[in-house]
Amino acid sequence: MPAVFPAPSASELWTLPGGLRVAFERRAGPGFAFDLRLPVGSAHDPHGLEGSSGVLEEWLFKGAAGRDARALQDAFDDLGVRRGGGVGPEATRFGVSGLRDDLRASLALVADVLLRPDLPETELPVLTDLARQDLDGLQDSPPDLLALEARRVTFPRPAASPLAGFAHPPSGTPEGLEALTADTLRAHLESYGQAGAVLGLVADLEPEAARALVAGALDGLRPGEQPHAPADFQPRQRIHVPDEDAEQTHLSLTAPGIAPRDPRWLAWQVALTALSGGSASRLFHAVREERGLAYAVSASPVLLGGQGFLTAYAGSTPARAPETLEVMLAELARLPQGLSADEFRRARSGLKASVVFGAESMRARAGALTRDVAVFGRVRPLAELREGLDALTLEGVNDFLAGYNPVSDITVVTLGPSNV
Amino acid sequence: MPAVFPAPSASELWTLPGGLRVAFERRAGPGFAFDLRLPVGSAHDPHGLEGSSGVLEEWLFKGAAGRDARALQDAFDDLGVRRGGGVGPEATRFGVSGLRDDLRASLALVADVLLRPDLPETELPVLTDLARQDLDGLQDSPPDLLALEARRVTFPRPAASPLAGFAHPPSGTPEGLEALTADTLRAHLESYGQAGAVLGLVADLEPEAARALVAGALDGLRPGEQPHAPADFQPRQRIHVPDEDAEQTHLSLTAPGIAPRDPRWLAWQVALTALSGGSASRLFHAVREERGLAYAVSASPVLLGGQGFLTAYAGSTPARAPETLEVMLAELARLPQGLSADEFRRARSGLKASVVFGAESMRARAGALTRDVAVFGRVRPLAELREGLDALTLEGVNDFLAGYNPVSDITVVTLGPSNV
Repeated sequence: MPAVFPAPSASELWTLPGGLRVAFERRAGPGFAFDLRLPVGSAHDPHGLEGSSGVLEEWLFKGAAGRDARALQDAFDDLGVRRGGGVGPEATRFGVSGLRDDLRASLALVADVLLRPDLPETELPVLTDLARQDLDGLQDSPPDLLALEARRVTFPRPAASPLAGFAHPPSGTPEGLEALTADTLRAHLESYGQAGAVLGLVADLEPEAARALVAGALDGLRPGEQPHAPADFQPRQRIHVPDEDAEQTHLSLTAPGIAPRDPRWLAWQVALTALSGGSASRLFHAVREERGLAYAVSASPVLLGGQGFLTAYAGSTPARAPETLEVMLAELARLPQGLSADEFRRARSGLKASVVFGAESMRARAGALTRDVAVFGRVRPLAELREGLDALTLEGVNDFLAGYNPVSDITVVTLGPSNV
Repeated sequence: MPAVFPAPSASELWTLPGGLRVAFERRAGPGFAFDLRLPVGSAHDPHGLEGSSGVLEEWLFKGAAGRDARALQDAFDDLGVRRGGGVGPEATRFGVSGLRDDLRASLALVADVLLRPDLPETELPVLTDLARQDLDGLQDSPPDLLALEARRVTFPRPAASPLAGFAHPPSGTPEGLEALTADTLRAHLESYGQAGAVLGLVADLEPEAARALVAGALDGLRPGEQPHAPADFQPRQRIHVPDEDAEQTHLSLTAPGIAPRDPRWLAWQVALTALSGGSASRLFHAVREERGLAYAVSASPVLLGGQGFLTAYAGSTPARAPETLEVMLAELARLPQGLSADEFRRARSGLKASVVFGAESMRARAGALTRDVAVFGRVRPLAELREGLDALTLEGVNDFLAGYNPVSDITVVTLGPSNV
């Protein structure tokens, strides 16, 4: 008797009295997965205290509810669960997956961490020091350095904003790590609560039972805040960051895109897939296959501050970097001429297959439930996604593209040996 | 009606007349995934022609069976399938997943690539050039450079071996790329065939139908060869590679481990999990949590030449690197004293949960089927794995550990600013 492919059942979306939104999907089997997303990330670090969200997330795990750091880690490991999550620019996530009988205990541990952390001050110097070591490690990676430099140039902090914004990694900056204290971190923790938070949960439970479990564990979460770090895109910048030690020149391109709730969103996804979704895609073909200009080249959508952006990356030899950039810009510049019927069909069938496979693992599905609610305000049923893709036409996508010219505003940041 | 967790059904293992082994597992649903593993990888590059396997794999996709490179890529993309695989030290893999109706066409395309490639000579300069660019990129990544240097020191090529061995990446070496030609690559392709090859396949098909599909597509694969690159472990080496530009010092440790078919394999896995399987693990706790010596530290098993090895890595500040190394060696040195009951229980429940979740996605399961046959000579049923873990005792694991002292033979390679 073959097992059944996990075609997911309908999901439910609840809002707890304190504001936490819970997206639940039932799936038979011995496992569970959840993904709790709080809308506070490194972009929301207070200006001058860069690294707060990253250090705080580590500090939270240094003991809670009567368990010291070691006992808390042991408690997670005792359950045999797998933990995921971490700190990104716009959110801090706590993910856990394991066997169903351990769901209640896993939720309780995450609640302990968020609500009853010890926050021992003796641990802080170790944590800021580890963050400094992570920053040192970034210095050894030109692609990571370029990504940071590109964020700094492309999305600078608005002068009036009290938030640090997008120009630093979760590990912060040396100055921010120097300035933060136990008190500033405790104040920062006040923003971690139900406001804007989402829990995605997949498990084989009656919906009522699932709701009761979640409410019992997380009802007490503080109100929290949903800070907004605006993505203040700077168009038409051209910056080269000299790095005499680098063997390669790394290129980063950023241009405006489409916001998730815009009706043109799916058409934009199709266009991006034709641009960079496989070996037949335009960028891969023009840069790598036809001209051998770069070993790695790609484009992808990025969401920041509720807006969508197109980003592209390539790593090339310093001598070939100018031609690599020229070819990438030329590929972007011909987007308004539209896709061919073949390109459209291929991109659409690639996206449809990814809808099927993206729902396969419980962990991935829990993450998708959370992301859907955070980004789209609701869970997008898989059938609706497939139907939305089916309803697209070549003409519709090309009508959209006729008005989409990312090159006109594109910002380019490069890093490598001095400009050649 | 909730969907059903994909508890996999029994798998079947067939050997085609030409020698190809096929591991099939039925799973209901719209998708399929397969993973074809040929036992020829970069370690089997002819000595002096380093890069052969890597360049050949790219060259195979430059047109086949009447389709030019573009048409071949389009044919894959037309199916909406996702491709995976690539070249590793000991194997070249072709992975495809998609919707069930496209399984036959996907197998046929892979067969075309392997059996009827165009191998256009005009493409070779572009491909070797891309490989050179990949090598340049490695120069910008100290952790990758260290991994290569550690392989070179720890597993040098036996002087009499005609194979290049483990000291270079799939992209080869500048000298090897310079020396390889269309003729040497065509000769290398002769070893790609059914000998030692394994296909893992998951799909909702009657086993007979699956067998007929596979046989129809792949029966014609040439006989091929199963070359053996011995992993000639060099114990007790201490090498520092100066890299004055690096901000960090990177450490690589390699010690003997347990071979996959050895009865002590599972006990070794439990010990490795206690050593480095989560936030309560010994290395993470001693190096990072207690002393803040390194942002990243880990240990993992590596299989080379049919043997198992323990490898460990950390990235530290140059000043703290000596203490980091000392603490890592101390943790390894106390393995013979055994695990505590808590550590044993935790490591075992972590491994049991990973058995459940590792089977969840079709792609992961197809890869596991292939790996099981390649490494263990058969498919290990999940129930057997769980029972094997249940049958382990603390005493049994500690009896094994009493005789396992990796530090006595350990080789240490470091890379960073000059020895401090």
